Amino acid sequence: MIDALIQKIKETNNPTVVGLDPRLDFVPEHIKEEAYDQYGKTLKGAAQSYVMFNKAIIDEVHDLIPAVKPQVAMYEQLGAEGIAAYIETINYAKNKGLVIIGDIKRSDIASTATSYAQGHIGLVEVEDQKFEVYKEDFITLNPFLGIDSVEPYFEACKERDKGLFLLVKTSNPNSGQIQDLRVENQFMYEYIGQLVSEWGKDMIGQYGFSKIGAVVGATHKEQGIALRKQMPHTFFLVPGYGAQGATAEDLAGCFNQDGLGSIVNSSRGIIAAYKNVKYSGEFSPKEFAKASRQAVIDMKNDLNRVL
Amino acid sequence: MIDALIQKIKETNNPTVVGLDPRLDFVPEHIKEEAYDQYGKTLKGAAQSYVMFNKAIIDEVHDLIPAVKPQVAMYEQLGAEGIAAYIETINYAKNKGLVIIGDIKRSDIASTATSYAQGHIGLVEVEDQKFEVYKEDFITLNPFLGIDSVEPYFEACKERDKGLFLLVKTSNPNSGQIQDLRVENQFMYEYIGQLVSEWGKDMIGQYGFSKIGAVVGATHKEQGIALRKQMPHTFFLVPGYGAQGATAEDLAGCFNQDGLGSIVNSSRGIIAAYKNVKYSGEFSPKEFAKASRQAVIDMKNDLNRVL
Repeated sequence: MIDALIQKIKETNNPTVVGLDPRLDFVPEHIKEEAYDQYGKTLKGAAQSYVMFNKAIIDEVHDLIPAVKPQVAMYEQLGAEGIAAYIETINYAKNKGLVIIGDIKRSDIASTATSYAQGHIGLVEVEDQKFEVYKEDFITLNPFLGIDSVEPYFEACKERDKGLFLLVKTSNPNSGQIQDLRVENQFMYEYIGQLVSEWGKDMIGQYGFSKIGAVVGATHKEQGIALRKQMPHTFFLVPGYGAQGATAEDLAGCFNQDGLGSIVNSSRGIIAAYKNVKYSGEFSPKEFAKASRQAVIDMKNDLNRVL
Repeated sequence: MIDALIQKIKETNNPTVVGLDPRLDFVPEHIKEEAYDQYGKTLKGAAQSYVMFNKAIIDEVHDLIPAVKPQVAMYEQLGAEGIAAYIETINYAKNKGLVIIGDIKRSDIASTATSYAQGHIGLVEVEDQKFEVYKEDFITLNPFLGIDSVEPYFEACKERDKGLFLLVKTSNPNSGQIQDLRVENQFMYEYIGQLVSEWGKDMIGQYGFSKIGAVVGATHKEQGIALRKQMPHTFFLVPGYGAQGATAEDLAGCFNQDGLGSIVNSSRGIIAAYKNVKYSGEFSPKEFAKASRQAVIDMKNDLNRVL
């Protein structure tokens, strides 16, 4: 799937992943009203509004982008109805040809990791029946527990052509509290980067990148440059552009000279574009998805300017 | 809630938390048949069998234990129906007076952590309606992203008397790969232990323990002793007893001399006791919950022997 992701990045000429992280204050009133009319001001009503919101955005942007990255927390927060909305969003995006990066950041011991792996990127067996439950193509994981917490996902990577993005240097302001500690004469994120490279070294595809990728925050310019050099076969998922403050210049170092090597996420900058003064004059709340389309085009141009 | 947890440990004289981590091969045939008759060999059928299994065990053991710890992965694996089963299990256990430790090990940047916090230990607002979605009393978290990934949970800890257990030294065999690295002249787990102590220092209850606890694996005897000394106001959630290989002697050092300071988890050792040769002679599969009761009594005696 890393090859398919890179192929789609080349086809769209756009290393952008749209973060489908809905919040009720991002969803326009007319969508919420329709959802509440059906299901009330309930968890199900909220979840339904997310599905309608996501589908409209996917309809408008799917031809421009390679992938979407739903953040499971936004859906999980709403309980079972939210998880149903997460899965419905994934199915819809997949049917539009998009690669799915499930932002789940799970971490657990091997027996538990196996359950997560089966559910998210593998198959769940109920007696003689097999179910694909979440159907993500990639998922994010937190490697703090070590290799035996990550290895249970490798079977699905190899046999079902799935992929992982492991947290190496996260985009949040306090990521350095642990990730920038000095260990064995290097920074922790370099040490973990080295582990991630090793773990993925027998899963390298036709473009030279492994199915085991890394999350490298755009908000840390110098670290991105260092990690890109250190991990030539590791594809990066780069959060932090836009609403979190990073610019195209900040993350340019996460790419190779050929413009490959990373996919950059933007969530609210795209899905809530219609609320941004940059777009709110041109697009009404009813045209929120068209505003998202324009924001994708602008982001694509902004990224390609520096690549 | 840390005070309520400790109070219940004192009342039951039993620092045991039962891990409600069902798997289909733990659930006796007669339960599965009943669930499949209703819902088929489907994700919903599997989820229903978990609920029936859990409820029977809770009925038999609730008077002996202070708390249960459902592992969300087992339920999440089954999709929306699984999450509904997770919530139903929590509601049932709460109604029996048990403290709920949700083993979710989430980790994410602040805006996302806020969504997890609202869903799991806070309130989710849908316009003017407020919902308690998961209703755990405590949840486990992975602190690898630093303080700004944990702080969003503190409001619920303070205002709704909830609690956290942050991963400090996990029970899995390869936990040392990252957690035992030397940083600033100490082990990583000591460094993180220090952070966890500091983060919890203004949330200490009547028994001298903070609402911000730590996960310390029973499988690491020496580290448990060192951390118990280092973190006198931090309550420990101790996994690894039984099926993962740790003995009562291994984890005794996680307790203070007064027998407080930790709660020890056992999952399959209790919920699948009827499959263990130790109990399978005395208890048939139909008596699985009674086997679990006996396993709880045996674990309680084993722990109290060393405390």
